[in-house]
Amino acid sequence: MPLHLADVARGVRETQYAVRGPIVARAAELERQGRRIIYCNIGNPQSLGQRPLTFLRQVLALAEWPALLDGPAASAFPEDARAAARRALTESPYGLGAYTESKGFRFVRDAVVEFIRRRDGIPADAEHVFLTDGASKGVQSVLRLLVDGPADGVMIPIPQYPLYSASITLLGGTQVPYYLDEAREWSLSREALETAHAQAVAKGIRVRAIAVINPGNPTGAVLDAANVEMLLDFARKHSLAVLADEVYQENVYRPQDRFVSFASVLVRRGIDDVPLFSFHSVSKGLFGECGHRGGYLESRNVHPEVMAEVEKLQSVALCANSAGQLVTWVMVNPPRPGDPSFPLYDRECKEIFESLRRRAARLQQGLSAIPGIQCNGLTGAMYAFPRIQLPPGRTDAQYCLALLEETGICVVPGSGFGQLPGTFHFRTTILPPDDEIELVIEKLSAFHASFTRA
Amino acid sequence: MPLHLADVARGVRETQYAVRGPIVARAAELERQGRRIIYCNIGNPQSLGQRPLTFLRQVLALAEWPALLDGPAASAFPEDARAAARRALTESPYGLGAYTESKGFRFVRDAVVEFIRRRDGIPADAEHVFLTDGASKGVQSVLRLLVDGPADGVMIPIPQYPLYSASITLLGGTQVPYYLDEAREWSLSREALETAHAQAVAKGIRVRAIAVINPGNPTGAVLDAANVEMLLDFARKHSLAVLADEVYQENVYRPQDRFVSFASVLVRRGIDDVPLFSFHSVSKGLFGECGHRGGYLESRNVHPEVMAEVEKLQSVALCANSAGQLVTWVMVNPPRPGDPSFPLYDRECKEIFESLRRRAARLQQGLSAIPGIQCNGLTGAMYAFPRIQLPPGRTDAQYCLALLEETGICVVPGSGFGQLPGTFHFRTTILPPDDEIELVIEKLSAFHASFTRA
Repeated sequence: MPLHLADVARGVRETQYAVRGPIVARAAELERQGRRIIYCNIGNPQSLGQRPLTFLRQVLALAEWPALLDGPAASAFPEDARAAARRALTESPYGLGAYTESKGFRFVRDAVVEFIRRRDGIPADAEHVFLTDGASKGVQSVLRLLVDGPADGVMIPIPQYPLYSASITLLGGTQVPYYLDEAREWSLSREALETAHAQAVAKGIRVRAIAVINPGNPTGAVLDAANVEMLLDFARKHSLAVLADEVYQENVYRPQDRFVSFASVLVRRGIDDVPLFSFHSVSKGLFGECGHRGGYLESRNVHPEVMAEVEKLQSVALCANSAGQLVTWVMVNPPRPGDPSFPLYDRECKEIFESLRRRAARLQQGLSAIPGIQCNGLTGAMYAFPRIQLPPGRTDAQYCLALLEETGICVVPGSGFGQLPGTFHFRTTILPPDDEIELVIEKLSAFHASFTRA
Repeated sequence: MPLHLADVARGVRETQYAVRGPIVARAAELERQGRRIIYCNIGNPQSLGQRPLTFLRQVLALAEWPALLDGPAASAFPEDARAAARRALTESPYGLGAYTESKGFRFVRDAVVEFIRRRDGIPADAEHVFLTDGASKGVQSVLRLLVDGPADGVMIPIPQYPLYSASITLLGGTQVPYYLDEAREWSLSREALETAHAQAVAKGIRVRAIAVINPGNPTGAVLDAANVEMLLDFARKHSLAVLADEVYQENVYRPQDRFVSFASVLVRRGIDDVPLFSFHSVSKGLFGECGHRGGYLESRNVHPEVMAEVEKLQSVALCANSAGQLVTWVMVNPPRPGDPSFPLYDRECKEIFESLRRRAARLQQGLSAIPGIQCNGLTGAMYAFPRIQLPPGRTDAQYCLALLEETGICVVPGSGFGQLPGTFHFRTTILPPDDEIELVIEKLSAFHASFTRA
């Protein structure tokens, strides 16, 4: 007999992933029917007009077809892009066509070490850096290590990025939600952590780890050093591993905020008893290279034998894709002042950053001005997660579907990320171009009034 | 406290993956100490001198940096490579930098449909084609669908490619081994299948699926249409899904053999009650583009709701890498006679094929001539799996480690693939260049004599 839904493993059926869920499927259907859709559901910058960085793509083109380096076309490339490609092809004599080490190219892992040293002033160990197909695959590997059944719990923020809830469900583990405080700009409190942990322990859950997203997705909140230290202290007290999702580390928009990595606080405070896994990605920041699936994980206070298990997990599917590893290399090892490509690279990065900051501010301002919508300051990441007042009996899923049908704007209901019971939200990216941001605000304003009147 | 091995989930610790296991780790260690290592452990053609196909890499370079299309460097590219890149950039207006659909670029999936039509003369449905990061990720997704706990069994050939055993262990399912008949060129018999199935059922296992690798890895055996039909009939009788691993479909070396896809037999025989998942990859065949992690899965007799679950699994980690999707596109949509690039493309492919065939024949001949080693004909794929006579008490793991230490040749013990109890084997690729193949045969011959004398 053909295979039916009832034949599918329960864990798979129970998994939910709203960012590409039914509302997004409906958007694609409407688009095929000729409707114009504004996709605000996913942090996919290049699909909304962001251009790739020239230097990066020059290096990739040369690495893909090295004959360009020696032919007459070589003059189309600046000297430092050619030098970078030559360096990559020396370090990886088989170019991009062979399986890499399961952990990823050694020279890229060395460059990650140097990147962390430059960023945080702390040492790192290339043997504890693994290159991954985007940050998501790294997160899934680490969760796989730690979750062995329904008694194993992982603390996740609410609201959270559904990679965490979906992966924990797929692994048959238990989500242990801790609430971020919307009234205080989605801040993290020790009290909320302790409450969540105690409730899980009371249910017999063995809490193994805590995931933290900084800057926050979908909240945009940026943790300061005291927050990070508090969380590490909490993790130590309860013997938890920390998963630090730091993919938005470059997306911090307010001058008074600064990204503080978990690794830097761990090292500065001499914390040697909290296992830490940090994740980074080429998909966000200023690269926005989502399609290339590049990223890395870095571990601290994790025994090499455990990293050998991560390596084994990676090796079953062989290695992260080689082009994505090269994108990671350029991200952590960009042109420096004085290099021929530096002025253009620097200008492109600054333009992207300023544009993100401008759109974040405009969206926050526009959303906040709509009666019945409250929106915290957009301090980081690529999203707004406004709270919406709904008539009794209506849900944010209904709201988002109606918004799509009536306006063509595709956002994700708050229920996909988690929220305090009785509250409703949606997540929108800040990524549409400036003129579309204006359109989104205008249409949302009219829609919200009509939906809540109805 | 730091994270130790004992903290790692049992399923992870129990997983074994010999192709990149301890012997390979020891080889890397020896190499760092200055020893010359001949890597015969993994089907990684470009790491052993195979060159990438020119047309493919031209298209990739253009897609990575589209400015090449319009600048003076454009003349470095043949017209059809430029046309292909323009087509890709029209179909994917965001180029390679945006997340693709979770299923993969639609135009690539359409090209897969056309490829299957050309290859087999049968229709296919792009909605049942998913692009994956290599075939491995596709296999893992399908196994995840079907395995929900230790009562769920999946039949795997012995010997097998350890992706299957490792993934089933990771998922907490049960391997149901069926033996290939070494005395008959590793052939597949109905009797062996029925025996294996009955034994599993007697133990209370709910057998869900059967995996078949054609051409075989590590055996090289090529199934004929009658074999394929027998297996489909067996699957129907026992309500099993079929996982057809067809990544070596172009690696068939004997003139009397021909690759027969499971899909073609399924359609020709009008079988509408056996769910089939077929897998293909850019890593093998004549491309050998292992680093790019490209491939696809195609399903038949699988309800769209089930494919929606596969899509959800893919969407949690967003999509397969975009460059790998493009490699898949060129593989299924190569230059045709009359295109400017056809003569070079065709010549490069033929050279690679002839070289693989020559090395397979030479290795088989050389191995068979060593007293104490028996080697079936190398009819397909990229490996030899010779049987070795060992002194009492010695294992093939010990043999392979000693071989590495004494000769620098890195092969994988038969125990990593499974074998009849009491028999011993190793797997070597056919991939070293001709002169190294001679060296491998010579050194192996001397080593085998000394190891078995000791």
